Amino acid sequence: MAGYRVAVVGATGAVGRTLVQVLAERSFPVSDLKLYATERSVGTGIRFGNELLEVRRLDEGELDGTEFAFFCATAEVSRRLAPRLASRGTVVIDKSSHFRMDPGVPLIVPEVNAEALRHHAGIISSPNCSTIQVVVAVNPIHLMSPVRRMVVATYQAVSGTGLDGVDELSRQSRAALEGAEASGSVYPRRIAFNVIPQIDAFEPSGFTGEEMKLVRETRKIMGDEGIKITATCVRVPVFHCHSEAVILETRDPLDANEVLEQLEKAPGVRLSRGESGYHTPAECAGRDEVFVSRVRQDPCLENGLSMWVVADNLRKGAATNAVQIAECIAGR
Amino acid sequence: MAGYRVAVVGATGAVGRTLVQVLAERSFPVSDLKLYATERSVGTGIRFGNELLEVRRLDEGELDGTEFAFFCATAEVSRRLAPRLASRGTVVIDKSSHFRMDPGVPLIVPEVNAEALRHHAGIISSPNCSTIQVVVAVNPIHLMSPVRRMVVATYQAVSGTGLDGVDELSRQSRAALEGAEASGSVYPRRIAFNVIPQIDAFEPSGFTGEEMKLVRETRKIMGDEGIKITATCVRVPVFHCHSEAVILETRDPLDANEVLEQLEKAPGVRLSRGESGYHTPAECAGRDEVFVSRVRQDPCLENGLSMWVVADNLRKGAATNAVQIAECIAGR
Repeated sequence: MAGYRVAVVGATGAVGRTLVQVLAERSFPVSDLKLYATERSVGTGIRFGNELLEVRRLDEGELDGTEFAFFCATAEVSRRLAPRLASRGTVVIDKSSHFRMDPGVPLIVPEVNAEALRHHAGIISSPNCSTIQVVVAVNPIHLMSPVRRMVVATYQAVSGTGLDGVDELSRQSRAALEGAEASGSVYPRRIAFNVIPQIDAFEPSGFTGEEMKLVRETRKIMGDEGIKITATCVRVPVFHCHSEAVILETRDPLDANEVLEQLEKAPGVRLSRGESGYHTPAECAGRDEVFVSRVRQDPCLENGLSMWVVADNLRKGAATNAVQIAECIAGR
Repeated sequence: MAGYRVAVVGATGAVGRTLVQVLAERSFPVSDLKLYATERSVGTGIRFGNELLEVRRLDEGELDGTEFAFFCATAEVSRRLAPRLASRGTVVIDKSSHFRMDPGVPLIVPEVNAEALRHHAGIISSPNCSTIQVVVAVNPIHLMSPVRRMVVATYQAVSGTGLDGVDELSRQSRAALEGAEASGSVYPRRIAFNVIPQIDAFEPSGFTGEEMKLVRETRKIMGDEGIKITATCVRVPVFHCHSEAVILETRDPLDANEVLEQLEKAPGVRLSRGESGYHTPAECAGRDEVFVSRVRQDPCLENGLSMWVVADNLRKGAATNAVQIAECIAGR
């Protein structure tokens, strides 16, 4: 089959495995797919369509000639390898946080700012999971009237921390149901039957890295440094899908019905109008859309709107968004 | 032992059982304690200190001569029985929502508006769990400079729905960990490893009853109908303790350190200053304080502050607050 020489770096992680699956599902044109991971995962077999591919160790030079390289490893791996690869003509689509705020690197959510891809220099960043779903839901409203302020409270799944987070929630939940205490190594507190108001490290402001990512990345993607954003990011005992309570204020008064009409046709958005038709993580796992519900005018704010936004953090929040970026570049 | 003739109506529910325990723990002066519940619970034994008390059926006249009656049953039971009892001299402390917004009935959180008890007519309402913890945390700041606006997102435990909610979370969690699906009867969606953005029924505005309780009760308790409040109330798979992300704006700019000093000495507040010393539900279960942490100046708002507030919804959010009201009236 004609197609591109593609590589996935960090193929055995939660995002990497989902990405290989999404490449197959969306039949991205691949002539050759190479999967890479760290030493301990070398030899692992990962299914791509009907083939079973073996994971290799990433050596210098290994990636030469690759046309699309998806980086799903650490920021450190991206920092070390992406620039050299890009300089040799590979298009690097980076899921790590390393290049996101680099003015020379586009930060892309195709439904929102695909046009920013025109000026890339070989590296394209994919945003943080909690940012992607909020901009897909809010941008259609931003286009009706500029968003002035946004308050976001998140309910984030453990798969955002990777497979270790999923294991820790299962292990601790089993123990708790038997009246036992299971130790944890992934989260700063117990996650089973608990919520933790810390994701990523604290910054001097008292906000966490995750909260500031949502602030900074949203401004860059929506192309408006003036938007005032406050976020409280909280880990909840859910396996898949992040949920967000989003409250925003627009420059002009908006009619809730017109907002619903815009969201109805907005790219990547799956809207529920009926008040009890809201979405929960359980129903959105494995889906690619950003689910928007409970859209309501907010009496407490000047031109205020409240809504509830759910998306699968491993799919639209990570793998699917990265593959969509490659599709844009491949002109599909 | 000298003391009051006390009755607990709805003694076998989650709040009722906790209330009996709190009466003993705080050695409220009781000469005679009678416990009442519906037919199916009659005969149940509930421990009060060293005694084992038998739960009785509530018949007309049964409560005559009672000095303090705690109502932990349905709004319907309160509506039917409270006025008659109050007219015969019993002080009714009602945990149900029935009288909360009645202008003739004080809605009390002792740390905030104990003085409003001076004008009661026999019935005193105790607020909704999610309201109590927010007013205890916010009122000390309101006294420094009036709170203009508040945005609250809640992370509410299943014990708020009573013992059935606790059972449903356990049952569904066990099933899910075995890869099975357990049906649910208490919540509109699965609660195990999921979050549900609906507590109570929807009002025409699109907000839920729980969200509007937080708005209306907070204004009544803080005695300021002008405070603009938006709430998103979400049920999370946590057994005990509600958590709340609270963002507020005051009339005047406030220095975060002065706010911390006020919260440090605020009645009923347990403050954590260190950024990583935040509280989670797991640590606050069984405690009577309102735990406040992650207090930070909010760059996104005019005179804005953000904080994280956790409290045991069955204790300070229900039973403890009701007993504290009785203590005020008994002049203790």
